[in-house]
Amino acid sequence: MIRVAINGYGTIGKRVADAVTCQPDMKIIGVSKTKPSAEAYIAKARGFPLYIADLSKKDAFDKAGIPVAGSVEEMLAACDIVVDATPGGIGAKNRALYEKAGIKAIWQGGEDHEVAGFSFSSSCNYADAIGKDYVRVVSCNTTGLCRIIKLISDEYGVKKVRATMIRRGGDPGDIKRGPIDAIVCNPVTIPSHHGPDVQSVIPDIRIVTTALIVPTTMMHMHVVQMDLARPGDRNRVLELIKNHPRIGLVRTQTGITSTAELKEYVMDLGRPRADLWENGVFEGSISVDGDDLYLFQAIHQEADVVVETIDCIRAMMGTIKVAEESIALTNHSLGFSPIR
Amino acid sequence: MIRVAINGYGTIGKRVADAVTCQPDMKIIGVSKTKPSAEAYIAKARGFPLYIADLSKKDAFDKAGIPVAGSVEEMLAACDIVVDATPGGIGAKNRALYEKAGIKAIWQGGEDHEVAGFSFSSSCNYADAIGKDYVRVVSCNTTGLCRIIKLISDEYGVKKVRATMIRRGGDPGDIKRGPIDAIVCNPVTIPSHHGPDVQSVIPDIRIVTTALIVPTTMMHMHVVQMDLARPGDRNRVLELIKNHPRIGLVRTQTGITSTAELKEYVMDLGRPRADLWENGVFEGSISVDGDDLYLFQAIHQEADVVVETIDCIRAMMGTIKVAEESIALTNHSLGFSPIR
Amino acid sequence: MIRVAINGYGTIGKRVADAVTCQPDMKIIGVSKTKPSAEAYIAKARGFPLYIADLSKKDAFDKAGIPVAGSVEEMLAACDIVVDATPGGIGAKNRALYEKAGIKAIWQGGEDHEVAGFSFSSSCNYADAIGKDYVRVVSCNTTGLCRIIKLISDEYGVKKVRATMIRRGGDPGDIKRGPIDAIVCNPVTIPSHHGPDVQSVIPDIRIVTTALIVPTTMMHMHVVQMDLARPGDRNRVLELIKNHPRIGLVRTQTGITSTAELKEYVMDLGRPRADLWENGVFEGSISVDGDDLYLFQAIHQEADVVVETIDCIRAMMGTIKVAEESIALTNHSLGFSPIR
Amino acid sequence: MIRVAINGYGTIGKRVADAVTCQPDMKIIGVSKTKPSAEAYIAKARGFPLYIADLSKKDAFDKAGIPVAGSVEEMLAACDIVVDATPGGIGAKNRALYEKAGIKAIWQGGEDHEVAGFSFSSSCNYADAIGKDYVRVVSCNTTGLCRIIKLISDEYGVKKVRATMIRRGGDPGDIKRGPIDAIVCNPVTIPSHHGPDVQSVIPDIRIVTTALIVPTTMMHMHVVQMDLARPGDRNRVLELIKNHPRIGLVRTQTGITSTAELKEYVMDLGRPRADLWENGVFEGSISVDGDDLYLFQAIHQEADVVVETIDCIRAMMGTIKVAEESIALTNHSLGFSPIR
Repeated sequence: MIRVAINGYGTIGKRVADAVTCQPDMKIIGVSKTKPSAEAYIAKARGFPLYIADLSKKDAFDKAGIPVAGSVEEMLAACDIVVDATPGGIGAKNRALYEKAGIKAIWQGGEDHEVAGFSFSSSCNYADAIGKDYVRVVSCNTTGLCRIIKLISDEYGVKKVRATMIRRGGDPGDIKRGPIDAIVCNPVTIPSHHGPDVQSVIPDIRIVTTALIVPTTMMHMHVVQMDLARPGDRNRVLELIKNHPRIGLVRTQTGITSTAELKEYVMDLGRPRADLWENGVFEGSISVDGDDLYLFQAIHQEADVVVETIDCIRAMMGTIKVAEESIALTNHSLGFSPIR
Repeated sequence: MIRVAINGYGTIGKRVADAVTCQPDMKIIGVSKTKPSAEAYIAKARGFPLYIADLSKKDAFDKAGIPVAGSVEEMLAACDIVVDATPGGIGAKNRALYEKAGIKAIWQGGEDHEVAGFSFSSSCNYADAIGKDYVRVVSCNTTGLCRIIKLISDEYGVKKVRATMIRRGGDPGDIKRGPIDAIVCNPVTIPSHHGPDVQSVIPDIRIVTTALIVPTTMMHMHVVQMDLARPGDRNRVLELIKNHPRIGLVRTQTGITSTAELKEYVMDLGRPRADLWENGVFEGSISVDGDDLYLFQAIHQEADVVVETIDCIRAMMGTIKVAEESIALTNHSLGFSPIR
Repeated sequence: MIRVAINGYGTIGKRVADAVTCQPDMKIIGVSKTKPSAEAYIAKARGFPLYIADLSKKDAFDKAGIPVAGSVEEMLAACDIVVDATPGGIGAKNRALYEKAGIKAIWQGGEDHEVAGFSFSSSCNYADAIGKDYVRVVSCNTTGLCRIIKLISDEYGVKKVRATMIRRGGDPGDIKRGPIDAIVCNPVTIPSHHGPDVQSVIPDIRIVTTALIVPTTMMHMHVVQMDLARPGDRNRVLELIKNHPRIGLVRTQTGITSTAELKEYVMDLGRPRADLWENGVFEGSISVDGDDLYLFQAIHQEADVVVETIDCIRAMMGTIKVAEESIALTNHSLGFSPIR
Repeated sequence: MIRVAINGYGTIGKRVADAVTCQPDMKIIGVSKTKPSAEAYIAKARGFPLYIADLSKKDAFDKAGIPVAGSVEEMLAACDIVVDATPGGIGAKNRALYEKAGIKAIWQGGEDHEVAGFSFSSSCNYADAIGKDYVRVVSCNTTGLCRIIKLISDEYGVKKVRATMIRRGGDPGDIKRGPIDAIVCNPVTIPSHHGPDVQSVIPDIRIVTTALIVPTTMMHMHVVQMDLARPGDRNRVLELIKNHPRIGLVRTQTGITSTAELKEYVMDLGRPRADLWENGVFEGSISVDGDDLYLFQAIHQEADVVVETIDCIRAMMGTIKVAEESIALTNHSLGFSPIR
């Protein structure tokens, strides 16, 4: 059993913790929280030992009836690998802690590539992550782009990718972030940083990305265009997508045309937290005109990196050497097969 | 086993179907749908026999790979009781169908009181529903008001209730309805119809309600004020709420102050569809100043009537004669105890 | 001519500057800004001399092509009275500056009553402000409440006011603030601070307020209930409103039921910035049942205090001694008469 | 004086009416409305004679205190040209009326090209519209695309255009339309109909468009990419934009990165209804990498076609033969020069 610690039991951390718990070859030995918020109650309800960075705050947890198992250092000492799911930018500061504890560490895409020196996507470079001590799982948007680009590139070759990301303003439970009524160019400069981020996983791809933020909490939407190296075929693209373990197909017959309806659909399917671990490619949008390919895909900002993180744990621990095997085990353990 | 049919497998119908399936004393014999939408796929995934009102549309279902079990009439012929969860206003037109089939029928709050002649709330008038053939389960807002008013009234007596309902514009999966950026007086006249609707359950209560619509999909929020017949005590009110099987308490220590955070919390608890079957009373808001009581409560428009409908089935079938027993069985079968 | 300086040329400051410019008895001698943002360009376009707090930032303004007239201290030295429209909480820190400059100062409602020791509403206590050196114009919500409470109280006496404020999340041009999809109890405790703030203007009124935030940028909406000292009459209330110089009546025949439609209407009327300087009372909502009065009113967070600030300048300078005269002059100079 | 009638005094009609009134060579002889809504009050306030299609509804107008000048037929008989600004799809049905009246007619982009057989953009095909009897002014999105494509194409040649339109869900005053919290692929198929619509003005352009709807009321945002026929130069593109009478430049130094801030800026500039008649190209977004050009532009759905309609009137009446002259006169009469 791989012993996993979650540093930062928030939007991503709580999902990774549940996903780890479902796997046969790993377990959660502890999670951390800085204050006795709603998520601390959830950790307690789940039975996860709760550690805190600053033991002077133990009183506040006691008062809230939430037992504290110890300090973050103690948590790190008890694990083989830590998943850092602290807010963007904090994770880099934690690296010294992890080095001192002599444990492996995974960061999320809110950190720069340099925090780990290796950026991970299950579908792209699993093999290269085997045995590594420090790895960054790329962000939700980069994960979604890497999956589809690699798939198409392996079949047809891709000369250039152009992608526009229409991003959600905040997560559903976030009441602080806006905008309320605006479309925000973020960044206002073109290209956005997402292209280089994809290149941290697929180095030789030519890609230009643009990004905007809109007033929704429900997933990002990507408009993806690719110049193929040779003419493509729509039916073949459909077939490729249907065979991919992490890309789902939003069937036209369902009548689903939006992020909200898609979220409702996976909620109805019984997925925990209505999570869409896969890319949600809209069948109706797939357009292949010679060497020009277009599609819309929905990317669930809270979820797609969760399954990647599970695979990443196995690759780094070296317990499963083949990407397909880990992906299949992760999916199976979660009862997850992409929507078709 | 009580044989239940669901006429209208949509927002409410799909939830009632799942809740029925969890009960030991009832089962779903069929659900109906008018077109092969996303929810028809869900019915298929759940294994519910799917019936359609207009058999001439069977082709469309066949093409979508969704088997059709027969006509709505056939479904009605096979059940003891039907839950009509068709869109507001359609249900009344179905009454003749139900009479012809000789079955009992439950309508939702989108219909007028007159459709059934009896309006139901588990906490208020379960006993009066025993053996009835036709019953209307009141709307989400009325259900939420009835629960809290009855609770306080039984303890202190209530001379007058004033409630403002800040209503969500549409359900999360609904992409048509607005508003996008407005606060709408709906109705612009005062009082709104919600007060008389509460009186259809608690006839002698004095109540004035106002209602507005805002651009959110996440639950309604009620501002409730009551003039008590005798001075109240905040701690006693807290105690009453904690002992109520259908009223939850949003603890101040969780830091939750909004509908969105509350939804996230029950989602994290693992509730199916993140449903809040209970009223969500905000602990911090409970204010008792002599005979003047105030509180905020969140009401999940998609969920609170679901558990009431299960109780209503039992009352009408006469299989359980005591409200508390049915409520306890419903809750237990769903693994539901109100948040505390 | 009263020489007015605006410290903080933002949402309120830019409106006050334009309103001052329309008056025959006062003029803008300068406005201040901390960085060369869009509003600095507007100040330049309007021809207002622009002063900056930190002269070391002059380069940034020069680079943006925006001339800097000098330091804030120099601006204060040149005026008779300063309107502090800096962000909430900053204003209090500026008091020493104003004392040193030996000028009169007006703060906005984002500051506490204590910053000035006197809280102002044109309709309530103009006479008491005459000659004062330091005055706070109360916030948009408090201004809106004071106007309607005073009006009704003068006619019928008011034993108790209950008001729920459904507040906009952010201003239209604010892309940072949320929520995106939530109703937020803010504060979650009852009563909110708005009641005591009304009492800072009308000391003897009994008032309980509750407040929530919703995802809109378009005005606040108030649900106001009053227990009258003697039975009221709806027609008389309508008449009172129609005769009030700062309360508008949203006629039922216009079909307007929301903040957004009301904003569109005043925009169409040609009001600068579509500003609603008056309370927008919805005719259809006015309900008088014996001694129980109800109404909805829209309050434009960016605008209603602007006209009050103009009156406040005159009261403090002592140039007009009678409230009605100043109100009439302010309104006339702006070409403003409340909607009817 | 060209005598202009406005059939449909709504979002576009009311703006065209005001713009006509500002011109020295044309005047409004009447506007039409179907019911005495808020906009009917505005027509009255503006002094526009109000005509109604169905004279049997005159009572409702009388009751609302809004004088009716006569029937739509009478209005048409009194004008030289009618601007049809009725809701999309209604306009086509009105063609017979206009033919019968023997007048020229302009339709808006909600109608198909076939309604008039000629689709107009001031910057592209003014000369071809001279003397025509029936013309369609293309939609806001198509207008915005045509302006920028023509500009770049004239300088560099354009081999292919790819544009993603992120569309507002509804207009600010529209409280019915959603979505509230979703990104909607609309249409879910690629390409969208906007490309062919651009080709109705610029026939030989290769263009692929995609379109999505988001929960905002504030302008559309376009992500525009062009494959140039020869390498471009960013400074030259900036210069071209600065010299275009209908394309504005959102300067980076203003700090404006969103539709909402841009709307606030033009509101502060004093534009009637805060209208952005020009494309709002974001300076920071302009990227030219060899033959690959990218930019973001904001398109105000309520406004950009208004100035085109004015030009179109002149072209059809044949009073001004040169596009530049009409454009200059329209702009000057409105006091409009694009933001820089």
